[in-house]
Amino acid sequence: MTQGTALIIGAGSGLSAALARQLHGRGYDLVLGARNTDKLADLAHQTEARTVALDGSDPAAVAALFAGLDGPLRVAIYNPSARQRGPIADLEPEAVRRAVEVTAFGAFLMGQAAARVMQDQEPRAGKRGTILFTGASAGVKGFAQSAPFAMGKFAQRGLAQSMARELHPKGIHVAWVNIDGGISNTARAERTDDGTDQMLDPEAIATSYLHLIDQHRSAWSNELSLRPWVESF
Amino acid sequence: MTQGTALIIGAGSGLSAALARQLHGRGYDLVLGARNTDKLADLAHQTEARTVALDGSDPAAVAALFAGLDGPLRVAIYNPSARQRGPIADLEPEAVRRAVEVTAFGAFLMGQAAARVMQDQEPRAGKRGTILFTGASAGVKGFAQSAPFAMGKFAQRGLAQSMARELHPKGIHVAWVNIDGGISNTARAERTDDGTDQMLDPEAIATSYLHLIDQHRSAWSNELSLRPWVESF
Amino acid sequence: MTQGTALIIGAGSGLSAALARQLHGRGYDLVLGARNTDKLADLAHQTEARTVALDGSDPAAVAALFAGLDGPLRVAIYNPSARQRGPIADLEPEAVRRAVEVTAFGAFLMGQAAARVMQDQEPRAGKRGTILFTGASAGVKGFAQSAPFAMGKFAQRGLAQSMARELHPKGIHVAWVNIDGGISNTARAERTDDGTDQMLDPEAIATSYLHLIDQHRSAWSNELSLRPWVESF
Amino acid sequence: MTQGTALIIGAGSGLSAALARQLHGRGYDLVLGARNTDKLADLAHQTEARTVALDGSDPAAVAALFAGLDGPLRVAIYNPSARQRGPIADLEPEAVRRAVEVTAFGAFLMGQAAARVMQDQEPRAGKRGTILFTGASAGVKGFAQSAPFAMGKFAQRGLAQSMARELHPKGIHVAWVNIDGGISNTARAERTDDGTDQMLDPEAIATSYLHLIDQHRSAWSNELSLRPWVESF
Repeated sequence: MTQGTALIIGAGSGLSAALARQLHGRGYDLVLGARNTDKLADLAHQTEARTVALDGSDPAAVAALFAGLDGPLRVAIYNPSARQRGPIADLEPEAVRRAVEVTAFGAFLMGQAAARVMQDQEPRAGKRGTILFTGASAGVKGFAQSAPFAMGKFAQRGLAQSMARELHPKGIHVAWVNIDGGISNTARAERTDDGTDQMLDPEAIATSYLHLIDQHRSAWSNELSLRPWVESF
Repeated sequence: MTQGTALIIGAGSGLSAALARQLHGRGYDLVLGARNTDKLADLAHQTEARTVALDGSDPAAVAALFAGLDGPLRVAIYNPSARQRGPIADLEPEAVRRAVEVTAFGAFLMGQAAARVMQDQEPRAGKRGTILFTGASAGVKGFAQSAPFAMGKFAQRGLAQSMARELHPKGIHVAWVNIDGGISNTARAERTDDGTDQMLDPEAIATSYLHLIDQHRSAWSNELSLRPWVESF
Repeated sequence: MTQGTALIIGAGSGLSAALARQLHGRGYDLVLGARNTDKLADLAHQTEARTVALDGSDPAAVAALFAGLDGPLRVAIYNPSARQRGPIADLEPEAVRRAVEVTAFGAFLMGQAAARVMQDQEPRAGKRGTILFTGASAGVKGFAQSAPFAMGKFAQRGLAQSMARELHPKGIHVAWVNIDGGISNTARAERTDDGTDQMLDPEAIATSYLHLIDQHRSAWSNELSLRPWVESF
Repeated sequence: MTQGTALIIGAGSGLSAALARQLHGRGYDLVLGARNTDKLADLAHQTEARTVALDGSDPAAVAALFAGLDGPLRVAIYNPSARQRGPIADLEPEAVRRAVEVTAFGAFLMGQAAARVMQDQEPRAGKRGTILFTGASAGVKGFAQSAPFAMGKFAQRGLAQSMARELHPKGIHVAWVNIDGGISNTARAERTDDGTDQMLDPEAIATSYLHLIDQHRSAWSNELSLRPWVESF
């Protein structure tokens, strides 16, 4: 029996694939949205997912995606972000504007559309749905030569806080996750980094996302940071 | 087969009992420390725990407690705190000093002793042990007419951050948990609050503590806040 | 003798007028940029300022403004922000995008252009220039039903932190000021609010901005919050 | 004409001397408290100050100090702190307890006594008095191998926030200042560090303290960080 629909925007290899597999294993019907869905064929087959090609920062495309969703939407996860690095003096304004749109405005579009759907559906175990944003330490601390990433991730975190304060009392759980470190792109079993786990394991991250999704409504977290044991912070 | 020892200081009803039951259910050998162990008889029986009467802010008592521990110590949890409320002008200096000692100095004593034991034992699944401190929102924001609680919880959070930065790379996971709201002291099934979950359910909190204990070392959290869906923040 | 040029974008009555007067009193040559410069005629006359009509979130307009600046640019202040309030479900995506552009993208445009000018000019008293962003508590805490303002102010604060970390060692001082409360729009002498100072006095805010501008480079602040004595926080 | 009394606890060379000189220059009657007042003779003479030998963490000594104060107390500044460094496993519990008492409990004692005096005196320019605590970045971030300093400075910051929230509406201004970097112990004119201002200049810090003391009650800051332009953060 299905747990309802789980949507992941910004699906690819790595974190999104681990999330898709764990959500599928738990009985969710998956919808995977990505700019380029060609590379998602294997994952979609493995997780019985439907794929949708879209630019997550395009209001019309996001509206069309949500118009096509069936059944109760229990989980919505936003992953995309754009990183522009360089001295402040050298950045291209249009690239900065675009970076903020991909990281934060797209997060708003998915968050808003998910809230609209979730607020009208029946709760299950006291919860109408869970909305998760994949953040970074750049949303907590603005690093030098990384203004656009700081702008996007800070904005995304402000969005998540505002939504949590509005939507928690309506039964919709919103959390922002600070992924503080690089994500390993190799399956745990195949890793050649001598087993020291210096990068975040996608399955480990996904396990914490699932924990947030499963939290009882009397004890919700609205922010969570995840970092490798060896990462300085 | 045992998972090793789990120590809880500040054991009583509510959160500690839920932690004890879940840890026992997962195969840990429990040691429960409390000022008054009389009221722990039922819980100790139920969870096959050993109880130790102690003042957690007394260095000699904490040293004696740790001298009596057997086997690898996998989990150490510190719960005690003292709250003195009132206008700053009306507080009794000795009560303030005592509040900080119970909340923060005792946390240091347990944290130090646990670190000493854990750093010399073999890791299991990449982790030597987990040290958790039960905090409150008073450790993030100093509220009016609550200076001693703010001092203690802020100090405890500073301690946890310092320990996390030192001990994570040694394989010891340290986290501070902000319990942002009142904890329900009634079992979930027996509650008469019309099922609205306005206070934190001890089992729900314990589930998140267990999640921290189980986190893979490539993705550790060092702070976590838990609050009821209806709690403003 | 002139202290160099001081630029204020988002000039109007209230804070900007107080800043203009105090900077003029200290010997700066003022340039006031605003969407509508008609209402600036009196202030411009009083402070011997040049006015420029521009949309601060338009890259070409900002480039043209900076192309027209003479002499060393010692101070650049960014004030504009757009506030869209309402339940997340009811917000208009284009209004959200626009709010983030006015509050944060415009701040980036001015910050970048000011950094380009300042980094090539000679320091005076150890400082090449000061860049200040007018923020709000919405940049520290995302309030319910105020997502666009939270997104913009968080993004602006992330920008300021990133710029401070990059530019402080180059001799350019960057700070983000959290104006935590409403700004009084009446001159202090003419106020009828019975002298209780429940709203921020523009002259008081400007005095703190001037203090930041005057800080010795061995002791710079990068964030400052200002709030009325009676404001809860 | 006198501005009233200004008290500095933890007086010595460096910051306290600069504060004493600037406050004296502004017309305050100075009282300097320190563990050892022998070394204060020159400063006391220069600033017409009265000196009091005391341990600022001793309730009786602090009570006696305040019993001996004359006139309205307009400024109270707390500087002492104790730093114990080392791996958590190697720290001496009594030294940790002592460090927290010097840094935080002493701050409470002075803060409480100052609040009692100030709340009953007439405001001047809308302000009954200013209470300042000299903090450090250790109160914002708990660094590895520095648990006691983190505990003390976090506790002190929690105290300051709690006091600010209670006392601001009573007309008493409370602020915590993060001195983020080393303080130069040489007069500016005599420095041999080639004029690069890599350490905080005591006069520059004192100027910012005076700015806080002078802030209009419609725009008070409750936290301020000061760091050298070249300091990473």
